[in-house]
Amino acid sequence: MDRPLISHVGIAVIELETAIDRWKLISGNNSPVIEDVPDQKVRVAMFASAGSTVHGGGRVELVAATSSESPIARFIEKNGEGLHHVCIYVDDIEAKLSEFKAAGVRLIDEQPRIGAEGKRIAFVHPGLMGGVLIELEER
Amino acid sequence: MDRPLISHVGIAVIELETAIDRWKLISGNNSPVIEDVPDQKVRVAMFASAGSTVHGGGRVELVAATSSESPIARFIEKNGEGLHHVCIYVDDIEAKLSEFKAAGVRLIDEQPRIGAEGKRIAFVHPGLMGGVLIELEER
Repeated sequence: MDRPLISHVGIAVIELETAIDRWKLISGNNSPVIEDVPDQKVRVAMFASAGSTVHGGGRVELVAATSSESPIARFIEKNGEGLHHVCIYVDDIEAKLSEFKAAGVRLIDEQPRIGAEGKRIAFVHPGLMGGVLIELEER
Repeated sequence: MDRPLISHVGIAVIELETAIDRWKLISGNNSPVIEDVPDQKVRVAMFASAGSTVHGGGRVELVAATSSESPIARFIEKNGEGLHHVCIYVDDIEAKLSEFKAAGVRLIDEQPRIGAEGKRIAFVHPGLMGGVLIELEER
């Protein structure tokens, strides 16, 4: 069976409602799932394919800052709106983080933490990753 | 059944081989599918989940320029390596392009054209799309 490699792509947006209208048009899905992630000081809108749940992966997440202290507010100040990160499924997040450490990859989170929907996640530093901010999510 | 909304995310890279090594580590998949797309003057490496085919969606595509005239070469000159575009599945690409035109969305491709693997695709201008370059791909 084909399993997506990508859990989601995170897109930094200034105004969540405007971005939601745009992505309803693009995705054909009028029922995004909205969630606050106080830990990151953001509010996210998750878009799956029309008729699919957000649990199958391959979704788009619009991310808006809820405070000027949020990493998303700082990203937008520097880069404007746009693609922010890509979240990749891994089977065993501790094992993957150990592999990365052994390979000399710089990690933002040395240990997994809890992200949206209670998933175990960790961020990898973009420095050695070709400028791409990568989030890992345990399936 | 859950269907991914995202066909793939395109990442602009300078050197394909270096980026492939990095993504073998991230994805756990040692067998990316490599393809030249002469139309765009690029060479791409597609990563699915280990054990999955690239046809299920939710994959990562590394994109390297094969000429300084390539849009990817111009992107890297301006922005450096990093996230370049997100490709979204649509059921009927002509219908979606008509919807976009009616909504005043600016299109790069007014008509579908043939992309990697013979798929029917079209690019949407990032100007009104929150700075995100969006590719549409017919399922």
